[in-house]
Amino acid sequence: MSDNVIGWSKWDLDTPALMIDLDKMQHNIQTMAAFLREKTDNRVRLRPHAKTHKTPQIAKLQLAAGAIGITCQKLGEAEVMADAGIHDLLISNQIVGAIKLRRLVELARRADIMVCVDDAENVAELSQAATGAGVTLRILVEVNHGMNRCGVEPGQPSLDLARRVADAPGLRFMGIQAYEGHSVMTPEHGQRKATTESALRLAVATKELIEASGLPVPILSGGGSGTFDITGVYPGVTELQAGSYVTMDAQYREKVGLPFECALTVLTTIISRPRPGVAVGDSGLKVLGSEFGPPRIVGWPQARVRALSEEHTNITIEEPLPELRRGLKIELIPSHGCTTFNLHDRVYVTQNDRVVDVWPVAARGRSQ
Amino acid sequence: MSDNVIGWSKWDLDTPALMIDLDKMQHNIQTMAAFLREKTDNRVRLRPHAKTHKTPQIAKLQLAAGAIGITCQKLGEAEVMADAGIHDLLISNQIVGAIKLRRLVELARRADIMVCVDDAENVAELSQAATGAGVTLRILVEVNHGMNRCGVEPGQPSLDLARRVADAPGLRFMGIQAYEGHSVMTPEHGQRKATTESALRLAVATKELIEASGLPVPILSGGGSGTFDITGVYPGVTELQAGSYVTMDAQYREKVGLPFECALTVLTTIISRPRPGVAVGDSGLKVLGSEFGPPRIVGWPQARVRALSEEHTNITIEEPLPELRRGLKIELIPSHGCTTFNLHDRVYVTQNDRVVDVWPVAARGRSQ
Repeated sequence: MSDNVIGWSKWDLDTPALMIDLDKMQHNIQTMAAFLREKTDNRVRLRPHAKTHKTPQIAKLQLAAGAIGITCQKLGEAEVMADAGIHDLLISNQIVGAIKLRRLVELARRADIMVCVDDAENVAELSQAATGAGVTLRILVEVNHGMNRCGVEPGQPSLDLARRVADAPGLRFMGIQAYEGHSVMTPEHGQRKATTESALRLAVATKELIEASGLPVPILSGGGSGTFDITGVYPGVTELQAGSYVTMDAQYREKVGLPFECALTVLTTIISRPRPGVAVGDSGLKVLGSEFGPPRIVGWPQARVRALSEEHTNITIEEPLPELRRGLKIELIPSHGCTTFNLHDRVYVTQNDRVVDVWPVAARGRSQ
Repeated sequence: MSDNVIGWSKWDLDTPALMIDLDKMQHNIQTMAAFLREKTDNRVRLRPHAKTHKTPQIAKLQLAAGAIGITCQKLGEAEVMADAGIHDLLISNQIVGAIKLRRLVELARRADIMVCVDDAENVAELSQAATGAGVTLRILVEVNHGMNRCGVEPGQPSLDLARRVADAPGLRFMGIQAYEGHSVMTPEHGQRKATTESALRLAVATKELIEASGLPVPILSGGGSGTFDITGVYPGVTELQAGSYVTMDAQYREKVGLPFECALTVLTTIISRPRPGVAVGDSGLKVLGSEFGPPRIVGWPQARVRALSEEHTNITIEEPLPELRRGLKIELIPSHGCTTFNLHDRVYVTQNDRVVDVWPVAARGRSQ
């Protein structure tokens, strides 16, 4: 199914189909690279988050443009990226449980792995697993600087945990993870900047506290697509881990207003025009992440998605619009790219509306 | 990964893991079978919707308990069910586009297929495809009796379309599809019954109109898990296509109050206990359908899921609750089973908390 469509017009693909406009995605990759080059002289580096795309081919384009490694949210994603030959991998998450610890140290034999900790007992578990397997794990202390999800508190608690890591056999303390998930979606830039910087002050102060204790802190990693231009230039930050920028989505684009193009769409067929004012497409909740609302329709300002059913796009139309006929294909921009990629086994890569490649979303479903 | 866990305690599985309690699911299957036997003497039959589970092994248990066939929402699901040896398949949807028409008539060579129509031009397309391939397609006219998604209007428009089907070579008119998606989730039973029955009146009147024209209407198919006891006994209805009942979910169970057990859970590890009142699990939006809200935690009334991140369960706790410790595994009941199954490649089947089988969710992602 995947191979015989190269050279096809994208409009001839069966639907629903996940598609990337390659030129728009490359624009995004180059925009981010240019930002770090021009604004920081590459003192701040990019380790983009592959939780968005789960696709090794995209990760490799990011590395080719200067990224120093790839960030994953789950061990299973990192295994897929390592299988694809990507060596430098940050898992921006806690690894807990006997099975996962075994898998982690196994992975560390063939890739250079870095993981987060926020608990002293977890540090001991990781140390035991690493020494048992004869590997070294790089460790970031995850600092809660405002998101209030995982993470140890800034200041002394973070220093205490960093010390434990530094003293633990098999582990190498590398620095701090501080992701500002609580501010990346704040619509107004000034407010987003204020919230982000007040969080970063805590993270940088913690970094300085640890350094003052004699422990080097080579890495301070944070930054989402909504805050790349804030976190990326904040003194003390060394790495960005933004992910969504690469293919963008409607939520980030419209709510936050970012300089990236929406490269990701879902091709959809109108399967019914049952009554005036209504069209029904064949893309629903099972092909579109919907927690940020319905997708946007490309090129039909008289039409909007009212709601998604499991396998239907419920579209409201300002009539008359006979051109939007049964059988027509349209493009939808997902409201959330990350959860949309996770619903697809493959993504069709297009250039000038022609299919130029088909990539497996190889880490799709790798939530373990 | 799948095979070596048979006999394990379910609590030893890696997480997140989708699990079915086999006894609870069999209870649900038997409850539905007993209802139709006792209330209708099996004059109304079950053709359960596989969009919920996407798993051939579950479909076969439903058939073994008396179901006369399987309903699918997408052609790709039907292909998977046919691959598993299931012969009688209703696709409760419109099949539109050249690629899908080819796949449909190809499938009709090896299975007995029934599809829905709501458009005269689509009838002509299906007829041409069927005659070209030398197959016969069974057809239901989808009647809009209140959901306002797809479907032709009741009465004369439905009769006109039924006539077209009956006259079209390669097609066999089998009756009416009328699914009351607009009432299955109405919480109060009396109101649910009133809305459903006022819709069914339109569907049955349409059936009688078509029959009065001399065209037999062997099938009137409808009924969701929320209305099985209403639609299942309504005079004129011949088939139910409920799906969710088989493993149930929190939304149907709590909002509608049904006599089915929640057999479906997602095993989750607490990966962080970062501060008092907070626990974080490893199941998020990428393993749990969330359009009906967060999942429910089994057995910990002092804990509730506040929100899901992409890969995190954000849990609020009434402290003190030290027993809910980092590393502990808990079970979550999805708010929506149908979209949760679609996020998993396999489901672990348990009995008395032991893993007795691992089934591929073979139609996962088959939205084309």
